[in-house]
Amino acid sequence: MSTSDLLEGIEARRIPALARAISLIENQRDGYEELLSAIHPRVGRAHRIGLTGPPGGGKSTLAERVIHVYRAREHSVAVVAVDPTSPFSGGALLGDRIRMESLTLDPDVFIRSMASRGELGGVAMTTREVCDLLDAYGFDRIIIETVGVGQSELTIAAAADTSVLVLTPESGDGVQVLKAGVMEIADIFTINKADRPGADRLRLEIEVMLGIRRGKAHGNIAPHHGLPGGKARESATEGVAGAGWEPPALAVSATRNEGVEELVDAIERHARHLHTSGELDRRRHERLARHTREVVDRSLRHFVWQERNGEAALAAGLEEMVGGTMTPYQVARDIVAGLRQETSNGR
Amino acid sequence: MSTSDLLEGIEARRIPALARAISLIENQRDGYEELLSAIHPRVGRAHRIGLTGPPGGGKSTLAERVIHVYRAREHSVAVVAVDPTSPFSGGALLGDRIRMESLTLDPDVFIRSMASRGELGGVAMTTREVCDLLDAYGFDRIIIETVGVGQSELTIAAAADTSVLVLTPESGDGVQVLKAGVMEIADIFTINKADRPGADRLRLEIEVMLGIRRGKAHGNIAPHHGLPGGKARESATEGVAGAGWEPPALAVSATRNEGVEELVDAIERHARHLHTSGELDRRRHERLARHTREVVDRSLRHFVWQERNGEAALAAGLEEMVGGTMTPYQVARDIVAGLRQETSNGR
Repeated sequence: MSTSDLLEGIEARRIPALARAISLIENQRDGYEELLSAIHPRVGRAHRIGLTGPPGGGKSTLAERVIHVYRAREHSVAVVAVDPTSPFSGGALLGDRIRMESLTLDPDVFIRSMASRGELGGVAMTTREVCDLLDAYGFDRIIIETVGVGQSELTIAAAADTSVLVLTPESGDGVQVLKAGVMEIADIFTINKADRPGADRLRLEIEVMLGIRRGKAHGNIAPHHGLPGGKARESATEGVAGAGWEPPALAVSATRNEGVEELVDAIERHARHLHTSGELDRRRHERLARHTREVVDRSLRHFVWQERNGEAALAAGLEEMVGGTMTPYQVARDIVAGLRQETSNGR
Repeated sequence: MSTSDLLEGIEARRIPALARAISLIENQRDGYEELLSAIHPRVGRAHRIGLTGPPGGGKSTLAERVIHVYRAREHSVAVVAVDPTSPFSGGALLGDRIRMESLTLDPDVFIRSMASRGELGGVAMTTREVCDLLDAYGFDRIIIETVGVGQSELTIAAAADTSVLVLTPESGDGVQVLKAGVMEIADIFTINKADRPGADRLRLEIEVMLGIRRGKAHGNIAPHHGLPGGKARESATEGVAGAGWEPPALAVSATRNEGVEELVDAIERHARHLHTSGELDRRRHERLARHTREVVDRSLRHFVWQERNGEAALAAGLEEMVGGTMTPYQVARDIVAGLRQETSNGR
């Protein structure tokens, strides 16, 4: 199928064309950048929601519930689930997907798993490009589900407009998880399995951390007032004039389907906040700049390793490096210098 | 301090010179590649040990215990602790470091924390280069401690010759953690806090997973015999002729200082296995090739973004992208084409 056929299929909102276009992008086959360039003017309508958290936090079940709420509100939804590389993870994650099967009969729901094989940065970049495609295709909401709270998951999550952190009372030490750098990027905190022991403690930990974060933002550590009562579903106030967004901490139970409407309300409130505050434009311009930077870097890598056969030079250099007569820095300098030489000889 | 002064200081085994050289590499200041190139011939004597696992698994305490065992065996030890980016993590991780303070009075122990700010791949690369420096300096063993089990932590852990995965009964669902892609890279499994409830279950889970992994390696799923009795400290047999390495699952208690000698024994056994099987050479050649590849990519990025002022071209293009008259792919193509043009005009 040619790029123009794919484009036509996407404009006509044909799912098989969408699926093929995603594969084209995932595998970086000929014409993928052309396709992405062609759809670019139509990108920017969808709101992108990141679901991030430690493994076993029930993110897939929660995603399913969120989809149902959005469908009831007549929004179309796409899910991009980024799985870690592991031959062992296939089974269970497939199981998670299968639970969503009833949803896949709905043409306004699209679910795609992406393996995070290959380069770290590459996965984040491809995720962003697949989201662009789903956006241009016309989905109203795009959910990016990632497993884990490491740096790479955070990078993937940076593709979202609204980041939802999903924690559970069992996800080990809440504070430890919160320390892992994920705190700063979360717009909404969700305590899933909130009926289990430890939920109150986790919520208290989140509140304390949010208090510290607020204190830092204001230049001093303010004592945190208004810790939640046991019943309150939403604790932190938000939208205080001029104070920006204050991330709420929401109790949900995905399996019991409790608190999901409130989560979707919070996401939509955050979407409006981003829009009215100008923060959405700022985030998206920043994302666009980062993406363009990465497209340049990818082009350069493609140039040196594919077009210019840098691998052969590397293989030749490897023997000398093992023999101790060359170092990685000398071999690299030769490869880059050779490239400059070659480009100056009339390419 | 000039690069040659730093080199002299490193050869004379002066700690201040080492600390400065690490800062030079971390911040990629002028002369850092020259320094790394100069020390390259002396790299390769140290054995590198990765300590990886979910947050809160007691890795810092375990690292401290392992250092004491190595010091008793008259090996010098360096620790590179790669912390996630978070203003919140500063305190607690500093606390972890402070517990090691008695060790820092010993000139044959060196502990360095590295913030994982900046690019993902960059951290893994810098960690590798700092390990090269510590190796050239003369440390016998280098411990690379990472927090988390995400893809980036795995990439950082790939700098190690021997990877030790540290799990705890409380680290949530053991199987979930094992699924996160970390299973394949672990040479030794450690169950820390083995005196707590759930340790037996976790061990059983590891054993079952190892059985599956073995089965897969042999081309079929073999039933797994020899599940451990409650008392056995080490359960999987290893070193079976021709069968390669079978990762042991060791019970330890870092706080009680139990099982640490056995862990160090297992690390040393794995080091000998790598050496005699030729696997050490294979892994190190692969690491060298990957590193050289990344040095080339870093040079190219430096060329386009620092030397050639690609940022200005990007900033100019950003306005057009926001206005909808250009796409990231067109802007990137122009930047790369401009680069080729410029290099051909006699640089």
